[in-house]
Amino acid sequence: MKALVYRGPHDVRVEEVDDAKIEDPTDVVIRITTTNICGSDLHMYEGRTAVEEGTVLGHENTGIVEEVGSAVSRFTVGDRVSVPFNIGCGTCKNCQTGWSSFCTRMNPIEGMDGAAYGYANMGPYRGGQAEYLRIPLADFNLLALPQGTEFENDFTMLSDVFPTGWHGVELSGMKAGETVAVFGGGPVGLMAAHAALIKGASQVFLVDQLADRLELAEQIGATPIDFSAGDPADQILEATHGVGTDRGVEAVGYQAHDHEGDEHPELVLDNLVKTVRTTGGIGVVGVYVPEDPDASTDAAKEGRIGFDYGTFFTKGQSMGTGQAPVKRYNRELRDLIVAGRATPGWIVSHEMSLDEAADGYDHFDKRETGWTKVLLHP
Amino acid sequence: MKALVYRGPHDVRVEEVDDAKIEDPTDVVIRITTTNICGSDLHMYEGRTAVEEGTVLGHENTGIVEEVGSAVSRFTVGDRVSVPFNIGCGTCKNCQTGWSSFCTRMNPIEGMDGAAYGYANMGPYRGGQAEYLRIPLADFNLLALPQGTEFENDFTMLSDVFPTGWHGVELSGMKAGETVAVFGGGPVGLMAAHAALIKGASQVFLVDQLADRLELAEQIGATPIDFSAGDPADQILEATHGVGTDRGVEAVGYQAHDHEGDEHPELVLDNLVKTVRTTGGIGVVGVYVPEDPDASTDAAKEGRIGFDYGTFFTKGQSMGTGQAPVKRYNRELRDLIVAGRATPGWIVSHEMSLDEAADGYDHFDKRETGWTKVLLHP
Amino acid sequence: MKALVYRGPHDVRVEEVDDAKIEDPTDVVIRITTTNICGSDLHMYEGRTAVEEGTVLGHENTGIVEEVGSAVSRFTVGDRVSVPFNIGCGTCKNCQTGWSSFCTRMNPIEGMDGAAYGYANMGPYRGGQAEYLRIPLADFNLLALPQGTEFENDFTMLSDVFPTGWHGVELSGMKAGETVAVFGGGPVGLMAAHAALIKGASQVFLVDQLADRLELAEQIGATPIDFSAGDPADQILEATHGVGTDRGVEAVGYQAHDHEGDEHPELVLDNLVKTVRTTGGIGVVGVYVPEDPDASTDAAKEGRIGFDYGTFFTKGQSMGTGQAPVKRYNRELRDLIVAGRATPGWIVSHEMSLDEAADGYDHFDKRETGWTKVLLHP
Amino acid sequence: MKALVYRGPHDVRVEEVDDAKIEDPTDVVIRITTTNICGSDLHMYEGRTAVEEGTVLGHENTGIVEEVGSAVSRFTVGDRVSVPFNIGCGTCKNCQTGWSSFCTRMNPIEGMDGAAYGYANMGPYRGGQAEYLRIPLADFNLLALPQGTEFENDFTMLSDVFPTGWHGVELSGMKAGETVAVFGGGPVGLMAAHAALIKGASQVFLVDQLADRLELAEQIGATPIDFSAGDPADQILEATHGVGTDRGVEAVGYQAHDHEGDEHPELVLDNLVKTVRTTGGIGVVGVYVPEDPDASTDAAKEGRIGFDYGTFFTKGQSMGTGQAPVKRYNRELRDLIVAGRATPGWIVSHEMSLDEAADGYDHFDKRETGWTKVLLHP
Repeated sequence: MKALVYRGPHDVRVEEVDDAKIEDPTDVVIRITTTNICGSDLHMYEGRTAVEEGTVLGHENTGIVEEVGSAVSRFTVGDRVSVPFNIGCGTCKNCQTGWSSFCTRMNPIEGMDGAAYGYANMGPYRGGQAEYLRIPLADFNLLALPQGTEFENDFTMLSDVFPTGWHGVELSGMKAGETVAVFGGGPVGLMAAHAALIKGASQVFLVDQLADRLELAEQIGATPIDFSAGDPADQILEATHGVGTDRGVEAVGYQAHDHEGDEHPELVLDNLVKTVRTTGGIGVVGVYVPEDPDASTDAAKEGRIGFDYGTFFTKGQSMGTGQAPVKRYNRELRDLIVAGRATPGWIVSHEMSLDEAADGYDHFDKRETGWTKVLLHP
Repeated sequence: MKALVYRGPHDVRVEEVDDAKIEDPTDVVIRITTTNICGSDLHMYEGRTAVEEGTVLGHENTGIVEEVGSAVSRFTVGDRVSVPFNIGCGTCKNCQTGWSSFCTRMNPIEGMDGAAYGYANMGPYRGGQAEYLRIPLADFNLLALPQGTEFENDFTMLSDVFPTGWHGVELSGMKAGETVAVFGGGPVGLMAAHAALIKGASQVFLVDQLADRLELAEQIGATPIDFSAGDPADQILEATHGVGTDRGVEAVGYQAHDHEGDEHPELVLDNLVKTVRTTGGIGVVGVYVPEDPDASTDAAKEGRIGFDYGTFFTKGQSMGTGQAPVKRYNRELRDLIVAGRATPGWIVSHEMSLDEAADGYDHFDKRETGWTKVLLHP
Repeated sequence: MKALVYRGPHDVRVEEVDDAKIEDPTDVVIRITTTNICGSDLHMYEGRTAVEEGTVLGHENTGIVEEVGSAVSRFTVGDRVSVPFNIGCGTCKNCQTGWSSFCTRMNPIEGMDGAAYGYANMGPYRGGQAEYLRIPLADFNLLALPQGTEFENDFTMLSDVFPTGWHGVELSGMKAGETVAVFGGGPVGLMAAHAALIKGASQVFLVDQLADRLELAEQIGATPIDFSAGDPADQILEATHGVGTDRGVEAVGYQAHDHEGDEHPELVLDNLVKTVRTTGGIGVVGVYVPEDPDASTDAAKEGRIGFDYGTFFTKGQSMGTGQAPVKRYNRELRDLIVAGRATPGWIVSHEMSLDEAADGYDHFDKRETGWTKVLLHP
Repeated sequence: MKALVYRGPHDVRVEEVDDAKIEDPTDVVIRITTTNICGSDLHMYEGRTAVEEGTVLGHENTGIVEEVGSAVSRFTVGDRVSVPFNIGCGTCKNCQTGWSSFCTRMNPIEGMDGAAYGYANMGPYRGGQAEYLRIPLADFNLLALPQGTEFENDFTMLSDVFPTGWHGVELSGMKAGETVAVFGGGPVGLMAAHAALIKGASQVFLVDQLADRLELAEQIGATPIDFSAGDPADQILEATHGVGTDRGVEAVGYQAHDHEGDEHPELVLDNLVKTVRTTGGIGVVGVYVPEDPDASTDAAKEGRIGFDYGTFFTKGQSMGTGQAPVKRYNRELRDLIVAGRATPGWIVSHEMSLDEAADGYDHFDKRETGWTKVLLHP
């Protein structure tokens, strides 16, 4: 079968690889109908992770069940399914308390909790930017979708970015009626804004400097804040009569840069601490890493982010972090899509065949205007 | 009346000051029966805060109602009361959602939420290391105690350290049956250990290097970890089969030092990130400050604490911070004391008259062996 | 001043009464701009409560501060305010944990927790269907509104029905993405539907038999269920593929009647137990009373409601009940109105002067078509 | 193998039955080391359920893994395990949100959520009062215990009564420092009292009339209330200065009887409504059923329990119900036992071989003095 293979920094190629097949009786193999390029794929693409050459990428996968293992009871051939990017065992303490993103059993790397498809340090699982994909422990890991092809571009957001944005809002502790500042207008930040509004935020600010992202935010009713036009925290403080927002979401990560393009890994956290009011909460779904050899400072190289912790404490703020446990949210998010109350597909900018994937990576990585979200249809 | 007055670094004196009196119809004046020296008083005593000369210190106060304002309805002369160290208005958003420690109305300093008695940056309220104390908005701020003198040394912990330790455990998200690592064996850390055990922790580790503190921890059933005997995180990881604890509590603050006495403000946070398992929670009640001119690094001078944030995120941990809202807890803690199920007075090491207070500060500040908690009885 | 006085069953009159005035330094007197007739006023109007002759009715009040007591610090003359129907002390255990509807200090009746304006068994407080109203403990009880006259018909819902509908949804435990069945399409039921949709319900069913109410439900995106057209639980089960809804809200109360007009006090609870799925939650804000001499059965006369408890248990459902603590919600609901994201005024059907109030009661009590919500502007 | 078989009312016999064996690759077979007689077994024993003749009873099972299916990855032969009484699929919405007691997939009976071993209406699963037991979906359903034989009488409580009592307290919403009234001093009620104290209740009342049960309650620090000595609610109200308790737990069920032995199915609920304060919570784990042909009233025959609902609403109480999801709690409860902080085995009164089981049923059913909890060791 064909699959997109990582061959080194800025080098991905569609190649022939071994077919995906049932390896355990609890497996399912699906035929991929849609698989997205994720912003975190770019970390690997840019050579800024430990991902191995030869890895098949792709963790945002949707498809049709093609083959079913003998111990699978919830799915049959032909079922349409969404595949959460996390692979859980369903039985460890984390999986059973709603934290499948930190499954303690599926990642063989010592000391690493959490597994995923086609991802650095997340276990030996092949990605889904391919024609077919093997799903381990399918009864636990797959989400059933309504048959047919309707909502495909919305449903494809269920495997990662929609639940991840939603998780950012959850981690912030937001309650209906509160205000939220989302930093970062990539797919995850836009989804966080969408999530906050669905959950009843009274006002959502979205901070970025790219006009196309700010415009997408405005389309769903968020208030765009252009950080190239002035300190974003000051802009939001002014808009909230000096009080700040009740909650904040970090959707940028360790490669945060100022409007002149210089990396400042503590920049977004500082802004959040300044923007959010006393006793407010901050949800962090932008990725930070324990080691980053290419970082701009010695501290950051070893994952140390010297943000304004003194003010964080003095304001009595709280912070939740980490990769989203997709399963905790994806049933309800699917139902919101079917009911027409969530429309996450609004961010899709480009759709292409698997053969064109390398081209898609190239454009997306350059953050070219309008390249918000790229979908591959193998 | 007599009161303990701050006269400069390492210089406190008992002097005659104006009598405490009713200033507003919602005030009460109490006669102090017990007022404690707090570890955070030492920050001021050591000259490491912006507290003004002439300030009467003391925010851990217990006493008897002496005089009652005309608009006070819950208290009458002779009532025995505990005074939370925070002064709340009872009507702002923070007060009404259980965050009286971040009252937005009682501290006149621009941008500072939260007021307290006799404390740097916490408003113009005189402290209670004195014969009498004025209580603003007494109906909201005072807690009624059973008449008499029973449990005085337990009740005196209700104004600050017992609720603060309890808050640390709450912020960590601990549930009954979980394990907890408390860093810091001063009064707040010991109270956090006491709280965790009362709330059903299966095991509580308390980390310090002073033998008297470790022994107090052991007395209530906690497991002492001596950090001078080896990396405390490694010791706890070994004791938990490599998993780490479910929760952690920071009860040290920005003056954290290693076992050789060198200050490393990020040390305890690093240890907590390492000790607590993936998806676990950390409660921070040790104080961090936005500005610390005497800090050991330039970053720390401006409140920047470069702890291992990359691992914090990768482990999906969460963190709650800030001064404790005493009122959220003090009724139930009082009831636990009366029922004999909480005994926070077990940490009291010294009791003395107000006249001896300067001597008490001196010994306590030097952390002399056995000087765990000092009570003043004016 | 003029006020609407209860003179006996089906007899209310606008009369001259003593002026509202400051009685305690913590009081405020407001000039009423809008005061609504509530469905629970009809219980009194119909003579089905113990309300005393001579009582001034009216607990849904909005106005302008006219006079301020000496101990009031949050309000000044001219401020526009919303008055929660509950009167809280702000200092008892219930008030301080967000349950101002069960204040233990403001209702002098032995064994009754909770006070209100112009309401049977809720204390000696005069109602606001009058020119002026005295507000006890104004700093705690009043909500500040933006100056001016904008949103008046939305803001007037903040004193009772909007928070009460919202509370029903909260008591049901609803989370975003879930489905909800609301029984009862009066103002509270309509507000519950509005609340559930604002908070991200994927689908909301509203059950009633009156066409005008069902139409109002449809206007905001709820699914109307006409119980005169068939068993409402069966209709909803069919619409949810036999699963039932995640949550249910009771917005009818003890005078529930079937579509032929016969009273069956257990009818709505039975329907909710049948409609809601296993482990689902039910929020009850429709009023039930301990004594109801006019009830249809001996059991119901003493408040005993023999609903299908065996199934309730077997399905593992939960139930929360009681009058809404308005203050817990009204700040955020106000902000949602100002942001244009909540529009509770859409249910207003009639506005009239205070002089026309008796006429308003008469029409509203007969549940004449289109008489959904009546506002009085003194 | 030998197993205890239900042969009709008051007739259970140890007989030879087909060996337990692996039927699916996800199964495990265990050798039973301890299996308890449960109070709910007596409902079947007395002929008051629809259980079929020939059923092997027993849902409180502990043992050693004897054989392992090919798709099982967490257990190997020789492992010591506790078996929750509920059988979950691990993948349905209820299982994944912590409600394995209401699994929607393992019980083939239409409309019934929740499966169990050897239990009326809970699916075709054989019970464990036998030499061996088949465990479906063992990776999900089994709990690992420390090897050896230590704590056997404590661990055997993990399969049902300890988590069930714990669940009652959870459903009541109890927080540390609060007071709790537990109605019913059978094993579940005693476990609820144990749980409440472990979780930090300030005072726990246990209501029963049997001296041996009241004495067991006293042994762990609960306050015994003998309902044959006077109205239990009045006794508790007096002990709480008229306020009542914060929380209540129902551990009796539909066969509640007064001290003269007459059945009054609404009696305990009435007492709870009266005992618990306004806004307090009630957890119901005593079993109620939708149909009870032998009930004392026509209403109760169809599961209608006419308790004092009017007061329940007027007091703003809440209520959670249903069978306990053992998996939600059993890890932490196991850890509390290992740490020596929970000792649920203190209620064990009798241990016997499987051959003596019929005799054990007979004595236990007659509630003979001192027959609190009977363990069978096959």
